[in-house]
Amino acid sequence: MMEHYQYKQMRYTYGFEEIALVPSDITINPDQTDISLAIDRLTFSIPILASAMDGVVDVKFAIAMSKLGGLAVLNLEGLQTRYANPDEVLAQIADAPPEKVTSIMQKVYSKPIKENLIGDRITAIKDAGAICAVSLTPANTKKLSPLAAEAGIDILVVQSTVTTARHISKSYRGLIFSEIIKQLPIPVIVGNCVSYSACRKLMETGVHGVLVGIGPGAACTTREVIGVGVPQATATMDCAAARDDYFRTTGRYVPIITDGGIRNGGDLCKAFACGTDAVMLGSILAQTEEAPGRGNHWGMATPHEALPRGTRIRVGINCSLKQTMFGPASVTDGTQNLVGALRTSMGVCGARNIREMHQTEVVIAPAIKTEGKTFQITQRLAK
Amino acid sequence: MMEHYQYKQMRYTYGFEEIALVPSDITINPDQTDISLAIDRLTFSIPILASAMDGVVDVKFAIAMSKLGGLAVLNLEGLQTRYANPDEVLAQIADAPPEKVTSIMQKVYSKPIKENLIGDRITAIKDAGAICAVSLTPANTKKLSPLAAEAGIDILVVQSTVTTARHISKSYRGLIFSEIIKQLPIPVIVGNCVSYSACRKLMETGVHGVLVGIGPGAACTTREVIGVGVPQATATMDCAAARDDYFRTTGRYVPIITDGGIRNGGDLCKAFACGTDAVMLGSILAQTEEAPGRGNHWGMATPHEALPRGTRIRVGINCSLKQTMFGPASVTDGTQNLVGALRTSMGVCGARNIREMHQTEVVIAPAIKTEGKTFQITQRLAK
Amino acid sequence: MMEHYQYKQMRYTYGFEEIALVPSDITINPDQTDISLAIDRLTFSIPILASAMDGVVDVKFAIAMSKLGGLAVLNLEGLQTRYANPDEVLAQIADAPPEKVTSIMQKVYSKPIKENLIGDRITAIKDAGAICAVSLTPANTKKLSPLAAEAGIDILVVQSTVTTARHISKSYRGLIFSEIIKQLPIPVIVGNCVSYSACRKLMETGVHGVLVGIGPGAACTTREVIGVGVPQATATMDCAAARDDYFRTTGRYVPIITDGGIRNGGDLCKAFACGTDAVMLGSILAQTEEAPGRGNHWGMATPHEALPRGTRIRVGINCSLKQTMFGPASVTDGTQNLVGALRTSMGVCGARNIREMHQTEVVIAPAIKTEGKTFQITQRLAK
Amino acid sequence: MMEHYQYKQMRYTYGFEEIALVPSDITINPDQTDISLAIDRLTFSIPILASAMDGVVDVKFAIAMSKLGGLAVLNLEGLQTRYANPDEVLAQIADAPPEKVTSIMQKVYSKPIKENLIGDRITAIKDAGAICAVSLTPANTKKLSPLAAEAGIDILVVQSTVTTARHISKSYRGLIFSEIIKQLPIPVIVGNCVSYSACRKLMETGVHGVLVGIGPGAACTTREVIGVGVPQATATMDCAAARDDYFRTTGRYVPIITDGGIRNGGDLCKAFACGTDAVMLGSILAQTEEAPGRGNHWGMATPHEALPRGTRIRVGINCSLKQTMFGPASVTDGTQNLVGALRTSMGVCGARNIREMHQTEVVIAPAIKTEGKTFQITQRLAK
Repeated sequence: MMEHYQYKQMRYTYGFEEIALVPSDITINPDQTDISLAIDRLTFSIPILASAMDGVVDVKFAIAMSKLGGLAVLNLEGLQTRYANPDEVLAQIADAPPEKVTSIMQKVYSKPIKENLIGDRITAIKDAGAICAVSLTPANTKKLSPLAAEAGIDILVVQSTVTTARHISKSYRGLIFSEIIKQLPIPVIVGNCVSYSACRKLMETGVHGVLVGIGPGAACTTREVIGVGVPQATATMDCAAARDDYFRTTGRYVPIITDGGIRNGGDLCKAFACGTDAVMLGSILAQTEEAPGRGNHWGMATPHEALPRGTRIRVGINCSLKQTMFGPASVTDGTQNLVGALRTSMGVCGARNIREMHQTEVVIAPAIKTEGKTFQITQRLAK
Repeated sequence: MMEHYQYKQMRYTYGFEEIALVPSDITINPDQTDISLAIDRLTFSIPILASAMDGVVDVKFAIAMSKLGGLAVLNLEGLQTRYANPDEVLAQIADAPPEKVTSIMQKVYSKPIKENLIGDRITAIKDAGAICAVSLTPANTKKLSPLAAEAGIDILVVQSTVTTARHISKSYRGLIFSEIIKQLPIPVIVGNCVSYSACRKLMETGVHGVLVGIGPGAACTTREVIGVGVPQATATMDCAAARDDYFRTTGRYVPIITDGGIRNGGDLCKAFACGTDAVMLGSILAQTEEAPGRGNHWGMATPHEALPRGTRIRVGINCSLKQTMFGPASVTDGTQNLVGALRTSMGVCGARNIREMHQTEVVIAPAIKTEGKTFQITQRLAK
Repeated sequence: MMEHYQYKQMRYTYGFEEIALVPSDITINPDQTDISLAIDRLTFSIPILASAMDGVVDVKFAIAMSKLGGLAVLNLEGLQTRYANPDEVLAQIADAPPEKVTSIMQKVYSKPIKENLIGDRITAIKDAGAICAVSLTPANTKKLSPLAAEAGIDILVVQSTVTTARHISKSYRGLIFSEIIKQLPIPVIVGNCVSYSACRKLMETGVHGVLVGIGPGAACTTREVIGVGVPQATATMDCAAARDDYFRTTGRYVPIITDGGIRNGGDLCKAFACGTDAVMLGSILAQTEEAPGRGNHWGMATPHEALPRGTRIRVGINCSLKQTMFGPASVTDGTQNLVGALRTSMGVCGARNIREMHQTEVVIAPAIKTEGKTFQITQRLAK
Repeated sequence: MMEHYQYKQMRYTYGFEEIALVPSDITINPDQTDISLAIDRLTFSIPILASAMDGVVDVKFAIAMSKLGGLAVLNLEGLQTRYANPDEVLAQIADAPPEKVTSIMQKVYSKPIKENLIGDRITAIKDAGAICAVSLTPANTKKLSPLAAEAGIDILVVQSTVTTARHISKSYRGLIFSEIIKQLPIPVIVGNCVSYSACRKLMETGVHGVLVGIGPGAACTTREVIGVGVPQATATMDCAAARDDYFRTTGRYVPIITDGGIRNGGDLCKAFACGTDAVMLGSILAQTEEAPGRGNHWGMATPHEALPRGTRIRVGINCSLKQTMFGPASVTDGTQNLVGALRTSMGVCGARNIREMHQTEVVIAPAIKTEGKTFQITQRLAK
């Protein structure tokens, strides 16, 4: 009666909320930690990227982020390139009642992309002396990436919910990343993926960075809609293993960027201990005063015409981008002073740089729910 | 002091909410996926069945479902064959206050089945050119199945909470499935079961399909009342193993149909990755405009005279059956465009057909609870 | 850095809410199941005992329970033997505001036991033709059990939160169970315990039954107060293993009785699958119209003068004792028709008697939380 | 497709809420348990310390705690040494609205420490005949500990969130514990740490006690802010293993003190079964009438100027310190009569002293959530 026929092996996977870091037996002064990030020949003083989401990044935000040492990615297929003046549309989304927001989004995103706006947005960022990164979907990359390159972008991000090195279709020829990389004079980051093999195969095409994460973000319902998703701690660890194996085999180090599922400084520190080289943030940055979303956040799968996966979330406005990055923190929930948090965490974990932070011991630890912490969160929401 | 005497081995089991699918390293255009289902010599363009529940299927609904390519099962022992005009009774159930609903159900279901209505309902479905499937309990199958066959049904479903190939009783001779199958000229689907051995023994009787699932549905309290139940992901995997072993031994492929516990497109996609050939939906379809339950849903064990197991749930009305099946979705919680969701999921999992979808990697992943998702659900309930 | 020094081995333990029963591949007509219980030479037609708690059992209740085929245990150290007319005190407890109930309890339970009331209560039960079982704490057993035996009890229950075969004290000589058993002409049940070794050592003293369960009941806070407790499914399985080993060694079968943590018919059925021979119910029976608690329930550790462990819970009044036991059920949450539920569960598990029910496959299954079930519970609480 | 590259091993860790104690098969009279604690040559009749937190310990509280047989630690870098009259500031914190409390804290804690107040506070405690323990951070220990020693302290606690035997910094020379211990004539307790190796390396410096626990307390958000923390049951067991190994190697027994995460008597008893020699309590003692926090509690990382980790929690006032320690309990949630709870727990676990309590069997048991217990907690919060 106890016979058990194993139809398939399933392994446990973990999100950031289920893990915790163990301090080392040697500590280091936080001021002496090096948190810089290299993507191909570009280097950044802080390993934080802003998501290519319309509630997070516009021209002004991209400039501010670059000045602070990070990197914002402008979505070339969002509102910024469909509307000469996107502010009205952004206000419309912010003001929409919850029950109408999905259909309003489906409508405003059905306007065509205006190719001239691509150049305008990129020029505006470059003219301010900022590093400029933009994102395209695989379907539009062949057509639009030459325009973007010509306008002077520094980094191209080719991004969709799930991107693989090989896509089978009878109706069109899938994007060949090795060709794109040869054609463009700039680093190309590709994603998203979550598994060792998908990540490794993307690296083998020659890309300069890989985005990690499917479905973990606050504004995403991919798992509810199509069942697909891997919790971010496990996804990061699997792709870090692919990166390390690829590096051992080829000598080429391709950074991975954990994208999504980071709700506070604690999650950010955990992502680095799980093996990431950088993090891409959405909802935390949507809460900055500089973000175009006016305290709202939504993913780029939200306005899909037939199968929207996500919705607008009211995240509220927390503080300035600078305070979010460098503090000082006036709240204690881990949403301010992210750089300070990372340096402090590296200090107690005895890590002098990100590569050493990858060695930190990680344990599986249940999410803590205490009166005090609940209280604190309530307090912030009430504000 | 640490001695540990193992009285019985227990293994972990999983529901859909605890698992997630891992995308493949090759993706496929959703348009190129084949999702057809074969039951004996009948084929269906979409692998979705509607539950034999009175809040879900009546004659009109059965016709609509067949036209869309799926299959609805009409309960021959429910209100449709007890009342010439069941609409009044359906309204009575819909209007009943919560504290009286169980006793009202017990009362209205105590009316006898009128045999002439069996023929009438079947004829009405067939006259519309639809495929007609009906359900009977094992106790009534010998008596009523000939009437149903004569009236022209295409598929017979013999269904009770737990159905086994062998039933021991002194008071009556249990139903012998091999005899029924010989007597009837049509495919017979039997259920429900949840274990490898029970499923395999049912297949060995010659049945043409097996329903999988005990107690996971939204309208079922079997586990609270009698302690019995196996979470649906595990039940599906165990029965899929039985199907595959039986197929390897005999060359006969008997489809399994996961029945219950599917709350959204994500769960539906996971069921196929767990090995099912089709899904039977209750509460999602009870939310369609075409469903006779007027936004209410209840299981067929609910009106049991001595030990009711389930209750009426107010599920509300979501949208049309067609939009539920094919979209476009105007909500993002996975309850609309189920076919689009399945094709998209198969695309990112690199599966060209259902048999390939069975090979998808599945991981154990904690249910995600984020502000955004909670928000979205709240939003839908408030609508 | 990953070194891991195992200070102590810890194993997982399970409560009823975390497990579920798997149906067999042969089913049996519920009418043909035998659920009788034997304690020494006494037999009972249903294997259900009522807890020795003042909100559950008084003389009237004990008589009613015996008539229905079960067994109620009267607490000889509770209100029934401290007050000639306990009804006033019961009303006082029922009416006490929450913040005062613990101190009121501490006060009313500080009244001394009147020895003459012991005889009166027992006589009243016996005069009605009922089987009479009473409980004493180990500290009072030597003194009061002769009085009870003389008054004609059929079964003595010696019960405290944790009872062991050996108790070390300088101030008094611990109770020696082997002596008590020799002195009394009736079966003696002892408890509570939760581990293999504690249960087996109690059996080796010659007792006729063992109560299993520390801290799992709805009215108990032992785990919060002193950290001690083992979830009931595991406790039952461990003690069942002790019983079986003891039976194999000695040929004497000592029934175990799972006491506490059973919230509905589902839990009750699971307890038998985990290996129990009978169940002792508190809060479910406190909800009957016959219970003296007026819809309130509290454990006997609640009025402890220095370290109370538990409180009064308002459980409400559900239905008559007979309907609780035999139905028909008018609710679907598993709190009515417990005997029907047990027979139905045994039927689908293919068990002809309790010993066969011990063989049922049990799986670890997460507690199901669906809209429908939550709805249903809300509905009952609102009633 | 199932290939699995293990990037890092992660083990499960446990908090007190996830474990439970198993009673022994021999029980002991609680009155015969010995719960005394030795730190170097000092002995205490009860193994309970009060946290060096400004809402918990002032001069008056330290005296009261010592008289009862325990030990309170006065924070020498908190309000007591920054303000001649700290009562006004304590009132200001208590009265601050939630949204302003963090910035108010940052301000009041920016006042400099007045060295003369260090002597005053210590003298006041010593003059009352109490044992005096004080805490300093590693950064200030070299400068301030001579002052404290001169003023007559009995024990020095050197404490920060994470303290290691070796700290790397270019800007200053880290504190060398072996030097401090040689210089001071009194026992030195150091912390906090959570791992075997960090604990063992601290013991190897010659310290007389180690504080265990990072981030588990009710007033701490270290895990949210920097991702670091180990649940207390596991942290205690790992450090207990280090203590035992160190003792076996050197013959020197260095007590460990579990600091944080103890919410009630149950947790306290579990800490001892996990291997601790003493517990340090914050929020439970902040609820006493004697605590200076006026029903409020906050950690010493709360007022950090750039990265505050914690907040003020309103814990309310429960009862007197004496009732908290020795009862009688008038509530049943485990927050009163902690000593009685420990002795009772040791009794049922058959432990005559703390070292025997370390041998108690511990199981992994899910937190129990029943109607009754929830009810009880609600009741207390409402009071």
